[in-house]
Amino acid sequence: MKSGIGKFPRLAVVLVGDRRDSHTFIQVKLKACDQVGIETVVVQLPKKCTESELLDVVSSYNDKTDVHGIILQLPLPQHLDEEKIINVVSPEKDVDGFHPSNIGNLVIRGRKPFFVPCAPKGCIELLLKHGVEIKGKRAVIIGRSKIAGLPTSFLLQRHHATVSMLHAYTKNPEQITCEADIVVADVGIPNIVRGNWLKKGVVVIDMGANQVKVMTSFFSILGDVCFEEAVKVASAITPVPGGMGPVTISMLLSNTLDSAKRAFGMIRNFE
Amino acid sequence: MKSGIGKFPRLAVVLVGDRRDSHTFIQVKLKACDQVGIETVVVQLPKKCTESELLDVVSSYNDKTDVHGIILQLPLPQHLDEEKIINVVSPEKDVDGFHPSNIGNLVIRGRKPFFVPCAPKGCIELLLKHGVEIKGKRAVIIGRSKIAGLPTSFLLQRHHATVSMLHAYTKNPEQITCEADIVVADVGIPNIVRGNWLKKGVVVIDMGANQVKVMTSFFSILGDVCFEEAVKVASAITPVPGGMGPVTISMLLSNTLDSAKRAFGMIRNFE
Repeated sequence: MKSGIGKFPRLAVVLVGDRRDSHTFIQVKLKACDQVGIETVVVQLPKKCTESELLDVVSSYNDKTDVHGIILQLPLPQHLDEEKIINVVSPEKDVDGFHPSNIGNLVIRGRKPFFVPCAPKGCIELLLKHGVEIKGKRAVIIGRSKIAGLPTSFLLQRHHATVSMLHAYTKNPEQITCEADIVVADVGIPNIVRGNWLKKGVVVIDMGANQVKVMTSFFSILGDVCFEEAVKVASAITPVPGGMGPVTISMLLSNTLDSAKRAFGMIRNFE
Repeated sequence: MKSGIGKFPRLAVVLVGDRRDSHTFIQVKLKACDQVGIETVVVQLPKKCTESELLDVVSSYNDKTDVHGIILQLPLPQHLDEEKIINVVSPEKDVDGFHPSNIGNLVIRGRKPFFVPCAPKGCIELLLKHGVEIKGKRAVIIGRSKIAGLPTSFLLQRHHATVSMLHAYTKNPEQITCEADIVVADVGIPNIVRGNWLKKGVVVIDMGANQVKVMTSFFSILGDVCFEEAVKVASAITPVPGGMGPVTISMLLSNTLDSAKRAFGMIRNFE
């Protein structure tokens, strides 16, 4: 895009504090942006910054016409009101898709949000690219985080799946999961979904990424689904790592690119 | 409130065109407001009014500090973009709860919308008032209209039910419905939910209100659930008419009162 039309997408990354995992995630995102020609600008605020300092930073990027996307790396330190700050990100630059008006427009059929959250968007892309029929299928989402499980349920419903949403209060989750043609796991507990939870031929999307200590100083990343068992039953399954993680990152790039295209007048609205 | 503090809630009702059913609904709402001391102001625009005329009316009520709620009677004539006009209603006066930011805040746990849509709010009120346990129960919603079924699913989920959402593309809806402890019907087809769809002891909320011709010039209102069959199986069931209809109207009054209280500084935010 840069060499073609002399313009390029720019993503602002706002990070508060020094969480190691947040730094790792940011690094992965920055590297991916760099590889595809999305310029990034990173603002790092100290852990003890005030709410108004953070709000000022976000607002300043809302106003900058040469910034097309803003991501606020979550979680924020506890003294900051996460929801309040997400509210301030302009919905038109909210490439994470977490702003309530974007979520509201995702939920209501016939409406179009500026952005769809990255992991759910990636989930649907994967299913569609692999020719998995969604319409009329039974889908079970296990876990209802606002960044993954919950918006995935909205998207699957948009594609006319019959969606059941399972969570910590669900009794006998394995019984309901057994009926599903598509299972999406977003639990945060390694290997909780076992092979005997699954119907033969099911399609499994594992959104888990659980860091598990394997030796004194080594960590391994495990999914929410016991891969070794599930792979024997499923017709398709995403591995962890190397499954939904990279797909999610690529959706962030896609959202940022769409936003830049809109700003450059290259598309009227999101596709 | 008027005699106590010399102030009172005021609701603006915007009606476009001359649909008979819309007029009937409005009359019911106006009467209910009158009975509880909510002042109403009705604006009726001709069927052929332009979008900008309608937007001007809505905006003018957004600006009036002595108007606490605005309802836009739906459906609008086809040449008007319903979603665009709903977007313009101030979320703080959107007593129908249809604005995307209110829907978004309803969906995301931990957030609070200014208003919850009336029929879904009434559904939860009914369940709670009658001591029906929601947490951990299987709930099936049949139908996903944005005014009833869809937001009801969000509310039931907020109360930690395990929710399945059924719709026109669902195969064997009776099979899934049979597993439910709570069934909410929002289909728009008279008597579609039969007794043999239901588990013994189920709680049934019927949101249907289908006008059916019984004689040449007489109409009867039927629900989506075959009451005669369902009542033999259910532990509790709402009748049609006289069930969810009046409850929904009372929630509109409640939302308008809450909005006025907020404007008068009597409550900080919604309860």
